[in-house]
Amino acid sequence: MTMLKQHAVPVGPCHLVITGGAGFLGVRLARALLAQGDVAIAGSQPKAIGRITLVDRIAPPADLMADARVAALTGDLNALLEKNDRLAPVVADDVAVVFHLAAAVSGECEADFDLGMRSNFAATLALLQACRALATKPMFVFASSLAVFGDTPGQPLPPAIEDNTLPTPQSSYGIQKFVGEQLVADFTRKGFIQGRNVRLMTVSVRPGTPNGAASSFLSGMIREPLAQVRAVCPVAPDTAVALSSPARTVQGLICAAQTSDQDWGPRTALNLPALTTTPREMVAALERVAGPAAAALIDWVPDPAIGNIVNAWPARIHAVRASGLGLLAEGSFEDIIREYIRENPYAVKLAVGQ
Amino acid sequence: MTMLKQHAVPVGPCHLVITGGAGFLGVRLARALLAQGDVAIAGSQPKAIGRITLVDRIAPPADLMADARVAALTGDLNALLEKNDRLAPVVADDVAVVFHLAAAVSGECEADFDLGMRSNFAATLALLQACRALATKPMFVFASSLAVFGDTPGQPLPPAIEDNTLPTPQSSYGIQKFVGEQLVADFTRKGFIQGRNVRLMTVSVRPGTPNGAASSFLSGMIREPLAQVRAVCPVAPDTAVALSSPARTVQGLICAAQTSDQDWGPRTALNLPALTTTPREMVAALERVAGPAAAALIDWVPDPAIGNIVNAWPARIHAVRASGLGLLAEGSFEDIIREYIRENPYAVKLAVGQ
Repeated sequence: MTMLKQHAVPVGPCHLVITGGAGFLGVRLARALLAQGDVAIAGSQPKAIGRITLVDRIAPPADLMADARVAALTGDLNALLEKNDRLAPVVADDVAVVFHLAAAVSGECEADFDLGMRSNFAATLALLQACRALATKPMFVFASSLAVFGDTPGQPLPPAIEDNTLPTPQSSYGIQKFVGEQLVADFTRKGFIQGRNVRLMTVSVRPGTPNGAASSFLSGMIREPLAQVRAVCPVAPDTAVALSSPARTVQGLICAAQTSDQDWGPRTALNLPALTTTPREMVAALERVAGPAAAALIDWVPDPAIGNIVNAWPARIHAVRASGLGLLAEGSFEDIIREYIRENPYAVKLAVGQ
Repeated sequence: MTMLKQHAVPVGPCHLVITGGAGFLGVRLARALLAQGDVAIAGSQPKAIGRITLVDRIAPPADLMADARVAALTGDLNALLEKNDRLAPVVADDVAVVFHLAAAVSGECEADFDLGMRSNFAATLALLQACRALATKPMFVFASSLAVFGDTPGQPLPPAIEDNTLPTPQSSYGIQKFVGEQLVADFTRKGFIQGRNVRLMTVSVRPGTPNGAASSFLSGMIREPLAQVRAVCPVAPDTAVALSSPARTVQGLICAAQTSDQDWGPRTALNLPALTTTPREMVAALERVAGPAAAALIDWVPDPAIGNIVNAWPARIHAVRASGLGLLAEGSFEDIIREYIRENPYAVKLAVGQ
């Protein structure tokens, strides 16, 4: 009945791997999978989750380490794959699902070309080869990115990104993600893995502290005011941006692993849905949720360098294929703010309305 | 005045490299360049061709070796790049132009995945890194392929391939070529090379003997009858196919090296033009050129395996961008046959009309 039973995967509880498993999305994904308790790989009968191995440079948070089903493998992904330790392999013989989220971020890859080629390009190929060596055709969900799209002279982006829009990456990060998609597609076609390419959108609202990404302000301008801290919006108020909440992003990754080949469709990457909004609308939503005091904490200080980057991103995603799988963008940015507040009560110091 | 003078390339005669330089297209390209005598890199002032290094597993033909400007470097490209012999490097310090044609063909890559990854994927990356190490930003013309396009379930090819049609490779060869395009694009964006991605069409009429390619019959059904040898057409007479002559293919490669950045446009690959025809029309043209005796030497014996492959190829190329550079398909297949006869008089045993 199931795809995997045909490929000699052991019956019983199954073993999942998440690279980048101690990062923001990896941790959320692990928590969601553990809460779900089982996984229906490619639409097959659900199997209990017996183990999730979180591979990352840093250790996972305490709540995850306290779960008996969680194992941590800490170190550089390339080094771990090269070492291929028999006692602690990245991909053990019983692994049925790999979520490959680990990556150097766009800013790093642009500043250090070789780092990006190693962390994104070589690591993805080595991980795919490790999965191929299993000969059990594991489910492999690859987290690609909206960054495969970018404006280029003489070839502007279309008004909306369609499922078959030609990617024209304008960064090494975007190129490396797009190359990863191709490798996943061919390893899938050859029957080495059961691959799923998923393009993630800009995630907002990210908890925690600002990072080096050009998109960092799209979380900061909500997160900081809610914590009674001033925040800068470096782009024009009416700049269109495409966002997805952490919850919808994780939902997309899990959906990819659980959708049958037939429903998934072509091996080309699936664009996740995104809410198109603007900083002006985001701040208006913040004001509705947390009052004018919150909105007053935004400093509108244009930074042309960031503006140029953000303006080159697509702002409208016509995600027909994702919609067919039940993956939809949030209805409003206000919903996204309320989700953040619900999930991060200790990070919110302003009084918020219902 | 020129791009290259800004990057410390020596003034005076210039040095070109052709990988796959002893192959069918490499030899033709070398002959065309030597006959031309100079090269106007990226539209700059022409420079005399002082040397062409032909890198291949086999030695080039005698006429090329007899030219004082030709050097041969014989061996496996990966091995040569790994060895990086100071006395005989693949890419010497004074190299200003690289034509990268060397590749394992589609059938080989499909039968031996690791061979394709090594010969097409790893070799292309290593060659790009060797060019980057020069720090002189050489012109790098990458021979990609129509094979980046292919029908896939749920995602049929459009009626015609446009310049911005999304590639959906259906073979490891196609994936490896498409990945090569991405690497060339990013090495170009980073300023490591001056890259040109060119997608070659099915070349007909190839001289010589049949090869293992599914497209082999598209040359054989003309070449063999002209030599008074029977030939098989394994597809339905009205199967649409997209073809380019050897001369137009070489013209496209040289044009890529000689076009300015501005005229070339985006870093995405340029589809070369192709003549859309059918075996029925091809044989009618053969009959007009060489009489009914030639056409009678065709055996129409369907081979569903070949038919399935050929039917998955795009047959109509709407090459607007190429057309803007003056690259056009032949006017008729009859012209292509007459070109073959003119260039290969010793391979023609039938009497042919003017």
